[in-house]
Amino acid sequence: MMEEEGSWEHFFAVHLPPTDFEDNRSLLKEFCERHDRHGHKIVLVTSGGTTVPLEHNTVRFVDNFSAGKRGAASAEYFLEHGYAVIFMHRQKSLEPFTRHFTGQKLLDMLDIQERGPNTTITVKPDSVDVLAPVLLRYKAAHSAGAILHVAFTTVSEYFWLLRAACESLSALGPRAVLYLAAAVSDFYVPKDRVPTHKMQSGSGAPVIQLHLVPKMLAPLVNLWMPSAYVVSFKLETDENLLIPKARAALDKYKHKMVVANMLQTRHHRVVLVTPESSQEILLTREEVHAGADIESPLVASIVQLHAASCGSDVTRAPLADCGPAPPR
Amino acid sequence: MMEEEGSWEHFFAVHLPPTDFEDNRSLLKEFCERHDRHGHKIVLVTSGGTTVPLEHNTVRFVDNFSAGKRGAASAEYFLEHGYAVIFMHRQKSLEPFTRHFTGQKLLDMLDIQERGPNTTITVKPDSVDVLAPVLLRYKAAHSAGAILHVAFTTVSEYFWLLRAACESLSALGPRAVLYLAAAVSDFYVPKDRVPTHKMQSGSGAPVIQLHLVPKMLAPLVNLWMPSAYVVSFKLETDENLLIPKARAALDKYKHKMVVANMLQTRHHRVVLVTPESSQEILLTREEVHAGADIESPLVASIVQLHAASCGSDVTRAPLADCGPAPPR
Repeated sequence: MMEEEGSWEHFFAVHLPPTDFEDNRSLLKEFCERHDRHGHKIVLVTSGGTTVPLEHNTVRFVDNFSAGKRGAASAEYFLEHGYAVIFMHRQKSLEPFTRHFTGQKLLDMLDIQERGPNTTITVKPDSVDVLAPVLLRYKAAHSAGAILHVAFTTVSEYFWLLRAACESLSALGPRAVLYLAAAVSDFYVPKDRVPTHKMQSGSGAPVIQLHLVPKMLAPLVNLWMPSAYVVSFKLETDENLLIPKARAALDKYKHKMVVANMLQTRHHRVVLVTPESSQEILLTREEVHAGADIESPLVASIVQLHAASCGSDVTRAPLADCGPAPPR
Repeated sequence: MMEEEGSWEHFFAVHLPPTDFEDNRSLLKEFCERHDRHGHKIVLVTSGGTTVPLEHNTVRFVDNFSAGKRGAASAEYFLEHGYAVIFMHRQKSLEPFTRHFTGQKLLDMLDIQERGPNTTITVKPDSVDVLAPVLLRYKAAHSAGAILHVAFTTVSEYFWLLRAACESLSALGPRAVLYLAAAVSDFYVPKDRVPTHKMQSGSGAPVIQLHLVPKMLAPLVNLWMPSAYVVSFKLETDENLLIPKARAALDKYKHKMVVANMLQTRHHRVVLVTPESSQEILLTREEVHAGADIESPLVASIVQLHAASCGSDVTRAPLADCGPAPPR
């Protein structure tokens, strides 16, 4: 084998593409080409955690904690700013719009009326106020073909999709934003060390030897997307490491921004670290209680900086208002 | 410390109860007492996988694969057979009734009409046929107070809730069924071996030393619920181990039944192994294509065997038809 063990080339050489890979690659290509023709900006939002299988017939795996709130909310705000959105998310993690309602909540909003052979189901009047604005934005985004969902579960599926998305996005040059909010595992178990069958508890407690996942930001920034506006995320639990680690990542990978956040306070405080500056965004206690999303000011700031960096205007209207795009 | 390391007493001694434990304990107590007064049968259905945190500020954890389909579907069928149901499930896993619809699917079923100041939202006529029967059963179960949801995430939360449920259920004697469908981790990392902060990838790839989780079936059958009808589950990936391991569990724990299933075929084949017999339940290819749940014949068989074991009739009507229960 040519590739050095631990390198990104080696990772792609030993991990096969996921089964639905070609379908997703076609969807990504069609989506990017269509929006490129219209001169739109596109953001790739990655969201949710990746898993590392511990067995081939995956019963057990190591997971990274992430409900996917950051990515799902951010996708909605990018749509409002006129971006087309590739929402690349962990299977079953939160999604834009539906994140506001779980299945249970939606069923509780419904009234059923049976009159002879006719059954009708309506949303209760007091739930309409909550549901209507979200439903309108959902329908607008989907009828404009402004959002594409692609899903991953394992860390290798994530990397295959990420590279395919970059392949299609690179044509957009500086109009592409990568917003890498997914919680990607730093560690994995190489394919040839994974047992085929379920680990048996009778044979004693196992030891799991983890290996380092290669840093994909390096080829992404240097080779795959050299002109894109790349935003990565740092989630820490130790405040002292937060900014130094964000600066170190910028120095190392030479991308545009690190959004630094602490696990405990991530829903009301983020720091936007760029090579030139750092900017803290805070929600007040009142805003938090009122259910405000920190992703609203966070995305607004990134949209501003992206516009400045590629010398274009900040679009304020969603794509649906710029005329219909072809249906999906 | 009095308790031997690795024993169930030791596990409860070193793992504190979850923060919402007392609230859940009260809910369980009220639910069991109310249905006991009415002479109802109660089934505890556990569902979904447990996690094992690898860090105190949980960013990473080991998870057991389970969407929770088995438990969520089974809960619906137990309700149809007149059982009150405690649905003890992994946070965010599938739930009865809502399992048929994800948030996205429900939003796509809705039409919005804006007429001046009045906005109404209705379910599209062609979606009513699918949604109405599920919605009616959902509303009937909830208005009869026939189902209680309690949620866990980690393996220690699961054990605390399981013991509390048994505490309240034991008064029902043979009218209680335990249907232990959750995918509980066999391994865990003891609390004092878990690092406080996020493992840093800079310090090399970590080794995770797992420890065996104590077998809670032993105290459950012998001490907590000696007269209950206890059903455990065995999920294997090696067919040769399936029935021998099920028999070995019955011999060891002396409970009533093991439902044995293979990971690959679990949605169309299960084997009900009891001390006296074993009974295979299969769905035909046509039934699978038509979307039939294997949990329907599975639960029907268990309800029969439970009735025979406690000498009572098989109830066929859901609780809602036996007169209203007090609202929750």
